[in-house]
Amino acid sequence: MAKPKTFKPKARRPRGFEDRASDALRAERALVHAASAVYERWGFEPLETPAFEYADALGKFLPDAERPNEGVFALQDDDEQWMALRYDLTAPLARFVAENFQDLAKPFRRYQFGEVWRNEKPGPGRFRQFVQCDADSVGAPGPAADAEMIALACEVMGAAGLTEGEYVVRVNDRRLLDGVLESLGAADETSRLRVLRAIDKLDRLGREGVEQLLGAGREDESGDFTEGAGLDGDGIRTVMGFLDAASAEGSRGDVVARLRSAVGEGRGEAGIAALEEIDAILSALGVSENAAIFDPSVVRGLGYYTGPVFETELLAVPTYPDGSPMQFGSVASGGRYDDLVARFTGQAVPATGFSFGVSRFAAALAALDRLGAAEPDPLVVVIAADKDRMADYFAMAAELRAAGLRAEAFVGGGNMGKQLKYADRRGARFAVIEGSDERERGEVAIKDLELGAEIAAEVSDHDAWREQRQQFTALRGELASAIRRRLSGD
Amino acid sequence: MAKPKTFKPKARRPRGFEDRASDALRAERALVHAASAVYERWGFEPLETPAFEYADALGKFLPDAERPNEGVFALQDDDEQWMALRYDLTAPLARFVAENFQDLAKPFRRYQFGEVWRNEKPGPGRFRQFVQCDADSVGAPGPAADAEMIALACEVMGAAGLTEGEYVVRVNDRRLLDGVLESLGAADETSRLRVLRAIDKLDRLGREGVEQLLGAGREDESGDFTEGAGLDGDGIRTVMGFLDAASAEGSRGDVVARLRSAVGEGRGEAGIAALEEIDAILSALGVSENAAIFDPSVVRGLGYYTGPVFETELLAVPTYPDGSPMQFGSVASGGRYDDLVARFTGQAVPATGFSFGVSRFAAALAALDRLGAAEPDPLVVVIAADKDRMADYFAMAAELRAAGLRAEAFVGGGNMGKQLKYADRRGARFAVIEGSDERERGEVAIKDLELGAEIAAEVSDHDAWREQRQQFTALRGELASAIRRRLSGD
Repeated sequence: MAKPKTFKPKARRPRGFEDRASDALRAERALVHAASAVYERWGFEPLETPAFEYADALGKFLPDAERPNEGVFALQDDDEQWMALRYDLTAPLARFVAENFQDLAKPFRRYQFGEVWRNEKPGPGRFRQFVQCDADSVGAPGPAADAEMIALACEVMGAAGLTEGEYVVRVNDRRLLDGVLESLGAADETSRLRVLRAIDKLDRLGREGVEQLLGAGREDESGDFTEGAGLDGDGIRTVMGFLDAASAEGSRGDVVARLRSAVGEGRGEAGIAALEEIDAILSALGVSENAAIFDPSVVRGLGYYTGPVFETELLAVPTYPDGSPMQFGSVASGGRYDDLVARFTGQAVPATGFSFGVSRFAAALAALDRLGAAEPDPLVVVIAADKDRMADYFAMAAELRAAGLRAEAFVGGGNMGKQLKYADRRGARFAVIEGSDERERGEVAIKDLELGAEIAAEVSDHDAWREQRQQFTALRGELASAIRRRLSGD
Repeated sequence: MAKPKTFKPKARRPRGFEDRASDALRAERALVHAASAVYERWGFEPLETPAFEYADALGKFLPDAERPNEGVFALQDDDEQWMALRYDLTAPLARFVAENFQDLAKPFRRYQFGEVWRNEKPGPGRFRQFVQCDADSVGAPGPAADAEMIALACEVMGAAGLTEGEYVVRVNDRRLLDGVLESLGAADETSRLRVLRAIDKLDRLGREGVEQLLGAGREDESGDFTEGAGLDGDGIRTVMGFLDAASAEGSRGDVVARLRSAVGEGRGEAGIAALEEIDAILSALGVSENAAIFDPSVVRGLGYYTGPVFETELLAVPTYPDGSPMQFGSVASGGRYDDLVARFTGQAVPATGFSFGVSRFAAALAALDRLGAAEPDPLVVVIAADKDRMADYFAMAAELRAAGLRAEAFVGGGNMGKQLKYADRRGARFAVIEGSDERERGEVAIKDLELGAEIAAEVSDHDAWREQRQQFTALRGELASAIRRRLSGD
């Protein structure tokens, strides 16, 4: 198995995949940790499913041997079965519930976070692997379970450090629009999907564009034509009136009252009843009229939702270091999907849940300076001033760790200048030096690297004062307490 | 995009992959959390690399189009490049360091935990996906860095809840045996690997089997013949004498002294010097003579180690529920690998690190009843006694959560009997019932499910007393405090 010594691969990541390092990771972990604590508190149990599922279980068509990777990363196992990496955490949940149906206490309440993979064309900020975090109740038929999910989303926003007014959860029920379409005689699947897609573009295309897509169709700037849902003028006005129900003033109750008249009888009534119960439970759970609102323009892209749906919008606008605003759509979204388990068992299993993308949300929170817990403790680097005394330096690092600091003895190569530069690049707060002079005096020299940087930024001609403040000495036996004192602002 | 309604996939996991649920996951997370805290404390930074690497970056031969999945899960990207899921966390680290070499402060100290995938024949307890947790210092040339890794492994054992005497870290240096082989004139790569493999089988085959493998070869019970390393009688005695150096009494220092005479001059001397420095630093870091010992029979399977190597053995023997002992090899292992980054850059980058398999180690710790932090808080299920009063039940659950309990209102379907059974299956400690009678009296009924189970196991004919202790009432306004009192053992 000797390797051909001459072959030297180029060190590079596959396209569309990223490495994530300390700052981003600490923020993501703090977010997942905070959300997990909320889910645990609300009686959800952790679950982890494997990265691979059989392709048919993912609800994709069986991969075509010519294009096995259409949308997912798929490969054939030894026994010729097609497996694919999961593209979300919902399809694996449906498989898990169907596989273990008899053994699970229902409702099955689980949360899961983990990577998902999409075999899509990579682009700036568009990755082919990212982390999702989901909570779902499976075997939960009523709107109460949907209301709980919405309240849970609000609590996760709070646990992530957002205050009220910095986010809003927009809630709708898929059946409302179905009722409207029923009343218009346009309830077939094609019309329904075209109307859903048209409504979903309200933000992007404005009223006029949506009206075109509801009617005969729309030609965009490039000349591409999108066929419309084929509604007549009355139908278009009815749908637009339905969308307007949320834009007037009022509470969730007021919106429901306006929607009721737009929806008429039939399938839409179930949606109205669901929103009424959701409103009552949100109020009981202390979810204010500002935190969660009813908005019939929320349609959610996924075809599998069957009842209440919701998405969470950030109102606080995080900015990039250059001051330009970060653009986010929904940071967390979910809804009711009663048919996913039935794909396997034939038996409808009512389910509701929600999901957020961890990296994106964590990046927003970091830009808003939330998730303070993600800040690590100060780091101390003990300089390897004399390579023969490494044991002493390790002992110092151990003392500093015992005092609650992050600490390491320098184990790389290079002289003191290089080592101090290392401490600086690592973002260390202190460097500790015990050369032969200090050791003879029973002392250690301590450089305050942060203060050094601050002073360097503020005064440039006051060397003596800078040196005095930036570097100080302590008795060897008082190393940890001297650093602790400096940190508490002596 | 309508799905063919008649196709019903079977709900099943791909072979060799497992779902992991609450108990196992909580134990694994507690372990990863404890280990991560240690790594952070010691100045290691988190890193996450993607699941995919280019196949050549993994150090595998480029996949053969006929057998692309030899050992790894590989597939071809749109641009025809072969990608494979990582099979460990070390190869991706080497790629990351090579790719970002100029931008990294050296030594680059990182820890990473995450899934790895092996495309192997699945078997009982042998999974094709599992979680590893690694810490490494890259750009760290001296034995001090190796000693730090060993001390770090000991601290992780402690953080996992093991006490001294419950584990031992066995340390060796690859160069010692190289020195022995050099002195025997058997230092070519084939002989070296055969000797390494023979030594690695000491536990399994005993002295005689190892002696055969060091010499002409060995025939096993099935008649299969393994070719030997071809050493003569003197050579075999020298190697066995080398292995015996650790079996006599004494400290790490005593073992080094015995090894020095077995190893002779040349390459082995560097190994002896390394062990001496490691000993000094372990002592400075308070790693006792029991926690870390020197043992020349430790060879580690991986070909890429170049210097000190170590593995961690559990001495406390966890047992399965039926009392039979769990068999573990090494729970954590590592060593120095100076050539991995050079694969990419041509430039040797000295590195050292160690790794443990999270699931296996967590299972052992759970069986030993460690990782107490993995126990969740008591769960309370608020029974949906009257579906029209769900808002009240949600409010109760919210009060209980605010009092630090896990709590949920029942959102599934079914009568009170089914709901109580649900609470029981969920392992809930309490069920709270507010029917119309209780509501009229301004009370709630609380069932202590754990006590109920205990009493049911102890007395079977004392209904009144059982009922009284198992169920109690509280004023509605004192729900949370009544449960808190019961938990503190009123």
